[in-house]
Amino acid sequence: MALADRVRYADFLSRTMSAEQAARFISHGDTVGMSGFTGVGHPKALPQAIAARASAAHGAGDPFKINLWTGASTAPEVDGALAAAGAIAQRLPYNSDPSARRQINAGEIDYIDMHLSHVAQHAWFGFLGKMDVAVIEVAGVTADGLLIPSNAVGNNKTWLQIADRVILEVNTRLPLRIEGMHDIYNGTALPPRRMPISLTHADNRIGEPYLHVDPAKVVAIVETSALDRDNVFAQPDANSNRIAQFIIDFLAHEVKMGRLPQQMLPIQSGVGNVANAVLAGLLHSPFEKLLGFTEVLQDGMLDLLRAGKMARASATAISLSRAAYEDFENNIDFYRDRVILRPQEISNHPELVRRLGVIAMNSMIEADIYGNVNSTHLMGSSMMNGIGGSGDFARNGYLSFFVTPSVAKDGAISCIVPMVSHVDHTEHDTQIIVTEQGLADLRGLAPRKRARAIIEHCAHPDFRPMLLDYFERASRQGAQHTPHLLGEALSWHQRYLDTGSMHA
Amino acid sequence: MALADRVRYADFLSRTMSAEQAARFISHGDTVGMSGFTGVGHPKALPQAIAARASAAHGAGDPFKINLWTGASTAPEVDGALAAAGAIAQRLPYNSDPSARRQINAGEIDYIDMHLSHVAQHAWFGFLGKMDVAVIEVAGVTADGLLIPSNAVGNNKTWLQIADRVILEVNTRLPLRIEGMHDIYNGTALPPRRMPISLTHADNRIGEPYLHVDPAKVVAIVETSALDRDNVFAQPDANSNRIAQFIIDFLAHEVKMGRLPQQMLPIQSGVGNVANAVLAGLLHSPFEKLLGFTEVLQDGMLDLLRAGKMARASATAISLSRAAYEDFENNIDFYRDRVILRPQEISNHPELVRRLGVIAMNSMIEADIYGNVNSTHLMGSSMMNGIGGSGDFARNGYLSFFVTPSVAKDGAISCIVPMVSHVDHTEHDTQIIVTEQGLADLRGLAPRKRARAIIEHCAHPDFRPMLLDYFERASRQGAQHTPHLLGEALSWHQRYLDTGSMHA
Repeated sequence: MALADRVRYADFLSRTMSAEQAARFISHGDTVGMSGFTGVGHPKALPQAIAARASAAHGAGDPFKINLWTGASTAPEVDGALAAAGAIAQRLPYNSDPSARRQINAGEIDYIDMHLSHVAQHAWFGFLGKMDVAVIEVAGVTADGLLIPSNAVGNNKTWLQIADRVILEVNTRLPLRIEGMHDIYNGTALPPRRMPISLTHADNRIGEPYLHVDPAKVVAIVETSALDRDNVFAQPDANSNRIAQFIIDFLAHEVKMGRLPQQMLPIQSGVGNVANAVLAGLLHSPFEKLLGFTEVLQDGMLDLLRAGKMARASATAISLSRAAYEDFENNIDFYRDRVILRPQEISNHPELVRRLGVIAMNSMIEADIYGNVNSTHLMGSSMMNGIGGSGDFARNGYLSFFVTPSVAKDGAISCIVPMVSHVDHTEHDTQIIVTEQGLADLRGLAPRKRARAIIEHCAHPDFRPMLLDYFERASRQGAQHTPHLLGEALSWHQRYLDTGSMHA
Repeated sequence: MALADRVRYADFLSRTMSAEQAARFISHGDTVGMSGFTGVGHPKALPQAIAARASAAHGAGDPFKINLWTGASTAPEVDGALAAAGAIAQRLPYNSDPSARRQINAGEIDYIDMHLSHVAQHAWFGFLGKMDVAVIEVAGVTADGLLIPSNAVGNNKTWLQIADRVILEVNTRLPLRIEGMHDIYNGTALPPRRMPISLTHADNRIGEPYLHVDPAKVVAIVETSALDRDNVFAQPDANSNRIAQFIIDFLAHEVKMGRLPQQMLPIQSGVGNVANAVLAGLLHSPFEKLLGFTEVLQDGMLDLLRAGKMARASATAISLSRAAYEDFENNIDFYRDRVILRPQEISNHPELVRRLGVIAMNSMIEADIYGNVNSTHLMGSSMMNGIGGSGDFARNGYLSFFVTPSVAKDGAISCIVPMVSHVDHTEHDTQIIVTEQGLADLRGLAPRKRARAIIEHCAHPDFRPMLLDYFERASRQGAQHTPHLLGEALSWHQRYLDTGSMHA
């Protein structure tokens, strides 16, 4: 297929160039907003061309670093390539690339870990500085110059709006029949001109299928042809299946008790294997006509759609394994009717998550006995990935689950600890903690009762006596609302750092 | 004035009785929803009658405790009286009474510390159990049986809706001409039937001036005649004035930089002396036609209204000193046009706080060098008051300030610490930290840069070298994204507990 079939706005064709040529529009010190969310929809060529430019500059003794803003995580050819070239000064809002992570932890990259619903608006407010260039992957351009989005929307709407210059990567590997799947809402505004967002059901369409760009800002069109990251999931293991079953039984019980409607509220599911396993579990649940209102559509949700168990799913990205993506492509007409991709300011919007009454399910690194949750840091200091949208959904959802296996590193680490080493979700925002050991429903419990519920239901038996001992000693010596022994609260983590195990 | 002038719905007059008689509708184990928010609008007679009933039961060897749910804090005649009688089993969502606080910290009262915007909906969802009785203070009842609210709305709408039985306290001391000041929105619903809330400006009225109650549920009408708590404020001291000036200068700078509109966005101000001082500072600021969109209208905001500096204020309660209340009463027609009292689910609603772009200013107990904020716990364990609405505003506001003097207890405690002993607001939700030493703007800063900004601008000089030493050693030894020395992170608090001072 000729590029002209994809780029039907004739004016743009004259701006076609190679990635190397286009990279010249990006200079040292620039803030670059790229498309990309959870390994899909990122530009496939420019980042490597920028990395090459940076390497050349460094070779000549010149500095070359950019600030890199995206929707969420990208892929090795973006964060990996740019990090390898030492070309990232600042990164937001999310990273899962190992090389970039090493530099973040070494303090070489300034990483800013934000709620995904905050990113577009804080950039638009001007809080993060100005954006020089946006590099956005699209599936095509209409004859009117409207952009057909790719497998992720992320912050593209905002980047296109606030950047001085725009480079479009037209990925001819994307199915053109994705046109019409997206719902781009252009009604957001700066205060005091904000209006209610009219969406009242997870599958409402409130926008249009295209992204807008001022044609005068488009400085380059680069053709690519590449698949997104292969987002491989582990087959659900016994622990994940147990966690899934606890959640499904709990939801069924809540329906029975009249605390949930018969028709299940929309489902949000975080990224990762456990979240994917929960979705797999829903395939065999009593719930029908499910709706998804989530950030990322993973294999498990695609399975639910295919099986007719889920009627429609709203997300900001489709992040699939190769096999699932093949099914998606081969049945794109089926999925286009059932999948709605939105900007992440909409997919994660507090207003909408609360209105719809979303059931939030997110994984975590650790929880403490009082229900505080750590989603981001290993042993208090080391950044893993970032908070992502977990806070948007946990704070505003109807119900919020945080899930993790009860132990990690072959049992050396307890994921239930006396005090979390970093707090991303406070006791005010957590409701239900689930491990393969069981489920602790913290709603309406004071801290001491929360502690007993979490230790009894969620902790691994190997750590349960140690946790109970801590809690009981703290209750005697601390004797306050949230009993803690401050000299000991983080000692489990310190012991792990010292000995490689939290066991005493 | 006869009670019949206040209670114009004739059917209710036959249900008039004494508080003692009405208290018989409340039994051991009941969940009782009371009106009351920040020392105003609470029932003046029933709580003491319930306390007497509890004391009598205890004297006879019988148990008598209730679960007490309110809007926020009440007054000695509510929490104080019931705590003194040992009559509270569970308390939510906020307490500032010293006796109740002692019992909360001793584990005798189960206290559940919730975001104020969550309370009504979680109760309505059924997450907290059923409500047996609502005891609601009103200024009167219309001929149609509609309730004229008092000086606070709080959760009254929801309590009246979900309680099995209702007791109304008609406080004849309240000015009847308060009628028309309130805006009770009845459009909230349970998911999946929720609709957008149409409010687009802080001073929009979207409801009606009355609370609804099913007349069949009203089991007692009790007449009272009492003033609300005298909410005394300290005169702004030098520290508070400095904090106020830093904030005002910052806002003016943001306007100049184009990051705030010329017409200042609506102001939220937390409870307490520092917050009140900031409002006092606004009297002499360059900003005009201010709007308030806040939880509690305190003396400082009344001053702004009187001076014409603020055009209108929206809140859920008017919590004033005696002198200010006298002015309020004497000029009620003036204030009725300028004050709008709403249910707290609306005053604190994430949807609205975000849409309006509220400027949030809340006090705190301590912040750490990475910007985590503790609003609730002394030395990690001991509950002070509760989170209140600070999370609703800090997470969703356009800008969020957290303020505190840099030291407490005559300099023995640093309010800037290596790691907070309890987290109520995470690094993802804090933007600007202000002490009398200065202001740290954390927007767009990675953790290490946040640390340097907070230490340099906000810490007291007596503690600055110790903080810098901690940070630099952690940066060398920890060498990760958020450098911490876990064995030392909480040592300042432990040292205070051991020695009475955080000084080494």
